[in-house]
Amino acid sequence: MTEQHSTRPVASQLRAAGAARAAGAARAARARPVVPRGLRRGLGVGELRLDGGFWGALQETNARATLQHCLDWMEQLGWLGNFDRVAEGATGGERPGWQFSDSEVYKLLEALAWEYGRTGEPATGELLGKVVDRVAAAQDEDGYLNTCFGHAGQAGRYTDLSTGHELYVTGHLLQAAVARVRTVGEDDALVGVARRAADHVCREFGVDGLGSSGQPGICGHPEIELGLAELGRALDEPRYTEQARLFVERRGHGTLAPIALLSPAYFQDDVPVRDADVWRGHAVRALYLAAGAVDVAVDTGDDDLRAAVERQWTRSVERRTYLTGGMGSRHQDEGFGDDWELPPDRAYCETCAGVASVMVSWRLLLATGEVRYADLIERTLYNVVATSPRADGRAFFYANPLQQREPGADVRPDAVNPRAEGGVRAPWFDVSCCPTNVARTLASWQAYAAFVEEASGDSSDGDGVVVSLAQYTAGDLRISVDGLEVGEHGGELALRVTTEYPHDGRIRVEVTAVPERPVTLRLRVPHWADGATLTGPDGATAAVRPGWATAGTPALAVGDVVTLDLPVAPRLTWPDPRVDAVRGTVAVERGPLVLALESVDLPDGVLLDQVRLDPKVAPRAQGDGAVVRAAVVPLPGGGAGTPPFGPGGPGGAPAPTSDTGVPAALDLTLVPYHRWAERGPSTMRVFVPTARPTARPTARPTARPEETR
Amino acid sequence: MTEQHSTRPVASQLRAAGAARAAGAARAARARPVVPRGLRRGLGVGELRLDGGFWGALQETNARATLQHCLDWMEQLGWLGNFDRVAEGATGGERPGWQFSDSEVYKLLEALAWEYGRTGEPATGELLGKVVDRVAAAQDEDGYLNTCFGHAGQAGRYTDLSTGHELYVTGHLLQAAVARVRTVGEDDALVGVARRAADHVCREFGVDGLGSSGQPGICGHPEIELGLAELGRALDEPRYTEQARLFVERRGHGTLAPIALLSPAYFQDDVPVRDADVWRGHAVRALYLAAGAVDVAVDTGDDDLRAAVERQWTRSVERRTYLTGGMGSRHQDEGFGDDWELPPDRAYCETCAGVASVMVSWRLLLATGEVRYADLIERTLYNVVATSPRADGRAFFYANPLQQREPGADVRPDAVNPRAEGGVRAPWFDVSCCPTNVARTLASWQAYAAFVEEASGDSSDGDGVVVSLAQYTAGDLRISVDGLEVGEHGGELALRVTTEYPHDGRIRVEVTAVPERPVTLRLRVPHWADGATLTGPDGATAAVRPGWATAGTPALAVGDVVTLDLPVAPRLTWPDPRVDAVRGTVAVERGPLVLALESVDLPDGVLLDQVRLDPKVAPRAQGDGAVVRAAVVPLPGGGAGTPPFGPGGPGGAPAPTSDTGVPAALDLTLVPYHRWAERGPSTMRVFVPTARPTARPTARPTARPEETR
Repeated sequence: MTEQHSTRPVASQLRAAGAARAAGAARAARARPVVPRGLRRGLGVGELRLDGGFWGALQETNARATLQHCLDWMEQLGWLGNFDRVAEGATGGERPGWQFSDSEVYKLLEALAWEYGRTGEPATGELLGKVVDRVAAAQDEDGYLNTCFGHAGQAGRYTDLSTGHELYVTGHLLQAAVARVRTVGEDDALVGVARRAADHVCREFGVDGLGSSGQPGICGHPEIELGLAELGRALDEPRYTEQARLFVERRGHGTLAPIALLSPAYFQDDVPVRDADVWRGHAVRALYLAAGAVDVAVDTGDDDLRAAVERQWTRSVERRTYLTGGMGSRHQDEGFGDDWELPPDRAYCETCAGVASVMVSWRLLLATGEVRYADLIERTLYNVVATSPRADGRAFFYANPLQQREPGADVRPDAVNPRAEGGVRAPWFDVSCCPTNVARTLASWQAYAAFVEEASGDSSDGDGVVVSLAQYTAGDLRISVDGLEVGEHGGELALRVTTEYPHDGRIRVEVTAVPERPVTLRLRVPHWADGATLTGPDGATAAVRPGWATAGTPALAVGDVVTLDLPVAPRLTWPDPRVDAVRGTVAVERGPLVLALESVDLPDGVLLDQVRLDPKVAPRAQGDGAVVRAAVVPLPGGGAGTPPFGPGGPGGAPAPTSDTGVPAALDLTLVPYHRWAERGPSTMRVFVPTARPTARPTARPTARPEETR
Repeated sequence: MTEQHSTRPVASQLRAAGAARAAGAARAARARPVVPRGLRRGLGVGELRLDGGFWGALQETNARATLQHCLDWMEQLGWLGNFDRVAEGATGGERPGWQFSDSEVYKLLEALAWEYGRTGEPATGELLGKVVDRVAAAQDEDGYLNTCFGHAGQAGRYTDLSTGHELYVTGHLLQAAVARVRTVGEDDALVGVARRAADHVCREFGVDGLGSSGQPGICGHPEIELGLAELGRALDEPRYTEQARLFVERRGHGTLAPIALLSPAYFQDDVPVRDADVWRGHAVRALYLAAGAVDVAVDTGDDDLRAAVERQWTRSVERRTYLTGGMGSRHQDEGFGDDWELPPDRAYCETCAGVASVMVSWRLLLATGEVRYADLIERTLYNVVATSPRADGRAFFYANPLQQREPGADVRPDAVNPRAEGGVRAPWFDVSCCPTNVARTLASWQAYAAFVEEASGDSSDGDGVVVSLAQYTAGDLRISVDGLEVGEHGGELALRVTTEYPHDGRIRVEVTAVPERPVTLRLRVPHWADGATLTGPDGATAAVRPGWATAGTPALAVGDVVTLDLPVAPRLTWPDPRVDAVRGTVAVERGPLVLALESVDLPDGVLLDQVRLDPKVAPRAQGDGAVVRAAVVPLPGGGAGTPPFGPGGPGGAPAPTSDTGVPAALDLTLVPYHRWAERGPSTMRVFVPTARPTARPTARPTARPEETR
């Protein structure tokens, strides 16, 4: 096989494009998260200070509980000790953890790096430094770094690209280093480790170094593409970008050794990225690969590749994505299903796939500016990422189904959980990719809140800058806009955002400082916000449609206040008729929050299976949830062992199970999906079957008294 | 851990119970399949000669094509050669096949044994003999027989009970030997091999021989229980029955080493058999275990154990079984799902689970006489077992979903298929348990057709015999009833059955010979047969309800004719409202056949997703299928990449995809599910969404012309 597109003079292109910025690169890199070479850049984690609120609370819990929690588990299980054993030359015995356990350490390092970058807390920096020292000590002289392969008593390096995860693990190391570059700069121990590791990968897997297999090597689990592309961008090192490009192009030609019972689509080795129409196979792999492909496309100017990922995004979101933004319909391969295959009960919706989806959409948002990408990010952050951690930050959902049929029972709430499912958040998993993925995402939430770009020039003078608020939170933004680089002299836009979003739909933005360049402010009106209004600096209120609403043209001034009012009353959401698994049901949403009906909110004697929502009665707000009118239907009695299908009218002729005097209609409380299962094992459903009650509702017995308090 | 219930004097009980029959045992065993020690016995394969018909045709294809097909594949892949390598002491290199590939050879031997027993064809006997010779040559001196463990360069015997499948493989060897005992008697080479293997297992895993682990050993995949119990019964050897009992009792105490990412329920090691309420985990394992447990329960008089399996059957069939009789809702672990978790598209419904379900129900039918077990056998035989083989007998379904969303594409129709799914029958699989399981079931179909029991005594004299026809086919039965033992002198009931069932509902039974003992004949009226009638020897016709319909009391006489008329007009079948995945849909059945709507039967331009069945119009018969009235609905247009959920009325406000002039209502043809995917890759569904058409039907464009011919 020949290298695909290897004749493109990528490196020289990159050098030319980057030359103008080279001087300020090291300085500019500070405090900035993943930033493509496009015209738009996201926020550095230091550019937004959260003032409590939904994400502030989650971020605080992450900082105070989750980071240490992850560290403790990895220490206890020996995943950190693996590095010490390599450093001490003590490998060869039983090695704790899966072959990819190093990556959890790296994702935790990334989380710590963002956290330190955001807060500068010395304790965080010290913690990080200690872990980095142990990691660095395990690096081989030639830059290779992996605690599972290549040492005494271990399998040889790169002898199992399909399942060994070596390059995957390295990718996470590089991402952690990028977080350091973006927060403290490149003169850093972890960055040094990553540089040596990346150089090693380039030597082994470059055009002339095709890996020990003799084949152009790729990793069974994409991630190295992402790590190399980000590091190449952060360090302005085109060799890394080129290596990322090689890995992207090599994929899809069926060169990975097959894994029993799985098809090549499992690791996206069935179709080249630029030829694929839809995401398929293992969801996290598909999405990490897509994110890396966007980085490569943007940094090499490969519009065809970028368009391919956009095309895949469009079809996958329309046909293979849950209401929550969750991706992955199948447990079997942790993968996407066919179009419209979206079972709520067996929805896998891995937390990591949610994180990865945010990463893809964020890159496409910066590459295109299209609001739909920010919409999906919001949906996914609130309903997948925020769903995973328990309120105390010390237990997590791995899978995020939209229906729980049986209360979680076979989960170990206080131990390593062998399985990804179960309906109860678990403190740790045998494969524990999700907790650290949540941690690094929450620690860098600021990055996704806004982006900056040059004004297109047709308005005002050509010197303008556009700042777009993509996600909403109360807090203070101080955004450097001079030259679009962070921290450069002279240009800073300061905004104070006041809101209780998503509990309330009002977002008030006050301008407290402006840079020399004229700034246009845009606010995202989510796709569900039918009836939103925007009140400008002049006090005039106008209806705004979903999309980007512009405020404060021609240029913002200090003291300007812009107020966006989003409708966050509960609303009904209906499935596409092709989503067979939820035919005849409806969901309730409120602002960006998907709501859920949980068994603990049902009156005694009522089963979740008996509830039918009355769609003719508008749901009304209650707390952050809603109250809906529902009917309680009798269920068929048990048969003598015939399959659950029979003659008769729809559903057969149901025989009441009992005469307990359950009211035929009543009001029921729905809670935000992201907080389900916080009150003990329960059954739950997001999509509720519909029907009209046959009798008037009783007084509102929405829940048992002790549960409403 | 102590042995459960080890104090029961099983062996002595068995000896006492069996003493009266011991003299004629060897002779009586001939030509009889699995026969419990209860009062009922099934047919020997020689007691019913099929006269064509549905099962006659399948059995003929099995004999003429499938048996050789399986042999050829196993020869080509080296699974047979594995035995030669052991015999030659040439182990140690790369061994072809999975660790359980020996079991496929044994299942083929079982199929050949039944086939030879039924037909006596010398070629079949020679083929069988040659394979037996190769198997026998691989048996170690102490009786151990396995080509994957215990020899030079292989892992040690019983070093991996969780996944090694050694005892599972042996179980299939014993079942194959039982087929020989039942057809040619116990003086047989294969029976000798099995005896030595069973003795070895008893020595290694008996009360005093707990396996090399020091723990009371059980196998990760149940099957040895079944093999030992059957062989113990066939050879009147209580040691084998006792060993089967030990294995059954040892299970459910969490002693098997865990398999990563799977829970102990996967191999039913979570709850003891006698304590469980429902089948769970890997479906084939659960069902083989249940079958073995029934055998043990019957032969040891353990009513508690038998009742446990009956209880599990009842709940599992009511809540975890598909309309087809298929079991196993999940691909992930090839397992049962939660109650009511029955997705049609991801239905696993492994063919082997269908075979295993028949085995369980058959044992419970003989143990209890309850008609519901025969009903489920019929449903499963027609809609799972008969669905698997392609019409030519040389390709098979492994999974049997009730909905196919995308036409089968990633299946290799001419090669070993790595995966169990795909919507196209494949000639062989990487794990190829299903083809040989189908082969042994079809070769012994006769066994399930009828059973004989002593009259209960309150009618006529106490000397009467009851013969119950459980499954229907055209053919000649010659049933020995004297002493309920086959082949004994003097007592034979001969019946000639004439029918085109299931195409037609009339079953005519003519008595052509009667034994000395008075015989009562019963015919099964299936649970769906609302409106059945029975015409007795006196010519009087009476309505009969589902259950056992008795004909010809007080005793049959030569020349008596009994005619059962079953209603086989197409009928609508509705799902229980708790089966969320098919809410708002209906299925069509015809007699024992589940029907399916296949894309190749749709007019050009109509997608399966657009079809809505009109339940107000009765389906009418066409061929073995039906014609239904349907509406064709427009589908929503694509969005800009929002998840497939939105505001609006039910299903949102669908925007027509096109104005192609597709008729709003039309008649569509449904075909028997067991024959779907015989006309190339297609999409398919058993449960069709319902709606009323908005316009009058057009003339009947039921299919493209070339497909109706």
